[in-house]
Amino acid sequence: MASGEAPPGLIAAVEHAVFPAGARIRPHLCLAVAAACGDPTPALTDAAAAAIELLHCASLVHDDLPCFDDAATRRGRASVHFAYGESLAVLAGDALIVLAFQTLGAAAGKSPLRLPALLGTIAQGVGMPFGIVAGQAWECEPRVSLADYQRAKTGALFTAATVSGALAAGAPAEPWRALGEWLGEAYQVADDIRDVAADPSVIGKPTGQDAALCRPSSARELGLEGAIAHFNSLVQGAIDAIPSCRGEAQLRALVRMEAERLIPKELSEAVLKDARAKEVSQALA
Amino acid sequence: MASGEAPPGLIAAVEHAVFPAGARIRPHLCLAVAAACGDPTPALTDAAAAAIELLHCASLVHDDLPCFDDAATRRGRASVHFAYGESLAVLAGDALIVLAFQTLGAAAGKSPLRLPALLGTIAQGVGMPFGIVAGQAWECEPRVSLADYQRAKTGALFTAATVSGALAAGAPAEPWRALGEWLGEAYQVADDIRDVAADPSVIGKPTGQDAALCRPSSARELGLEGAIAHFNSLVQGAIDAIPSCRGEAQLRALVRMEAERLIPKELSEAVLKDARAKEVSQALA
Repeated sequence: MASGEAPPGLIAAVEHAVFPAGARIRPHLCLAVAAACGDPTPALTDAAAAAIELLHCASLVHDDLPCFDDAATRRGRASVHFAYGESLAVLAGDALIVLAFQTLGAAAGKSPLRLPALLGTIAQGVGMPFGIVAGQAWECEPRVSLADYQRAKTGALFTAATVSGALAAGAPAEPWRALGEWLGEAYQVADDIRDVAADPSVIGKPTGQDAALCRPSSARELGLEGAIAHFNSLVQGAIDAIPSCRGEAQLRALVRMEAERLIPKELSEAVLKDARAKEVSQALA
Repeated sequence: MASGEAPPGLIAAVEHAVFPAGARIRPHLCLAVAAACGDPTPALTDAAAAAIELLHCASLVHDDLPCFDDAATRRGRASVHFAYGESLAVLAGDALIVLAFQTLGAAAGKSPLRLPALLGTIAQGVGMPFGIVAGQAWECEPRVSLADYQRAKTGALFTAATVSGALAAGAPAEPWRALGEWLGEAYQVADDIRDVAADPSVIGKPTGQDAALCRPSSARELGLEGAIAHFNSLVQGAIDAIPSCRGEAQLRALVRMEAERLIPKELSEAVLKDARAKEVSQALA
């Protein structure tokens, strides 16, 4: 019945939120798990991966709003609210959440029996009580456990990615939960480290935000050196958590590659060198 | 794995958005259509109705934000952002959208084959290109067709309500689309009329907003008298559009009752009296 297109501003804001792509680690993870399980329904897996990425993009658009981080840049260019205004940023986030579930439903025609669990798993990764929306809401509370916050803010969608990869492939899903949990925690710690130690032009967004916004941060809690050691142990935990399956070796390689992308060796070596220099100068003082 | 509850502020903001109830005309419509079709799966119908109401509540929370209407009151008390702040209002809206789809998925266990179409129908009522998010985004455009705007902003979710009522009941859905379209348009025209002519304490939100915010409005386009005549013809259109079915008579009665609730006879009579008085005074001048 409608005669035209969607409002041009909304279309542009939604496209700006999704393209050009970020690292897309969550959908890659979902696809990799499905492939490792042997994937007879790649259309449904693709939709699950797309839904997860759309939800991630929605959360970035809303997190960047003036009432949260008020970030002017994201992925090396203007954030959505900076480019299109606050109203369209709110609506683009909403539209992306709806589009995620719509994408999932549209791909389920050939395997509808998998849809309820898949929908539930992905919704859990985003909503209340333990998904990314809840994680973001912990930033509005006077007291928060760092573990609960990180699990919800980041871990939940990683867990949704691994579990839904298995579900979309029709494989038992629970064995894949731990991998998502380890990776989610590693990713959050890496993000905290990069917020303290990285070059903003390399990561495409402002640094120093956790301290500026008084956000919980493992780099602030453990120190940079401690946070890097913690990151390395979480990556090892993720590797050890990969269930035995056909694609085990490829998955291990993927996790190692992603860890190196997040915290390059030069960065961790520079931090350790700096820490040793401080120890020496303290010993000499 | 998470150890606690959702953040208390988020829980409170979400509850504030949903309770106490508004008129809940959309879920009532969904339930009424399903009942009129004969409803062998009431659990799925209940979930569809709940999802539609949760999405409607989400849209109200986000529409009331400072970057849109900046409304301090809603349903006779503080709007969500006024009571809980802007951050929690953004997140409560997000959480409600997710919860809507989660509720739908969770109820589909016994009739999973109905889920894909139901999910698609409800998502279409909310998202891009023609759902309520798109409708709200038309407010950000310099030029907009009143019909496209109203269809998306209000009509789409009414259509989703009638179509999903039929789908949840396993009945042919397309014959129910026209009823939703007529009712949605009638509801939007009633809203425009009430924004001009009603008492804010009766409708529980500020009036005069369409003019203040330069929003498209049929009361501004057709005049109050013309808008009331238009409303009456839309209600008749809705009644005529009810497909022949077991519960036809009850549905007709529901539509008439809802029309009277929206634009009580006293209001339309007062407007017509006022218009006649103006004509007389112009004739005498």
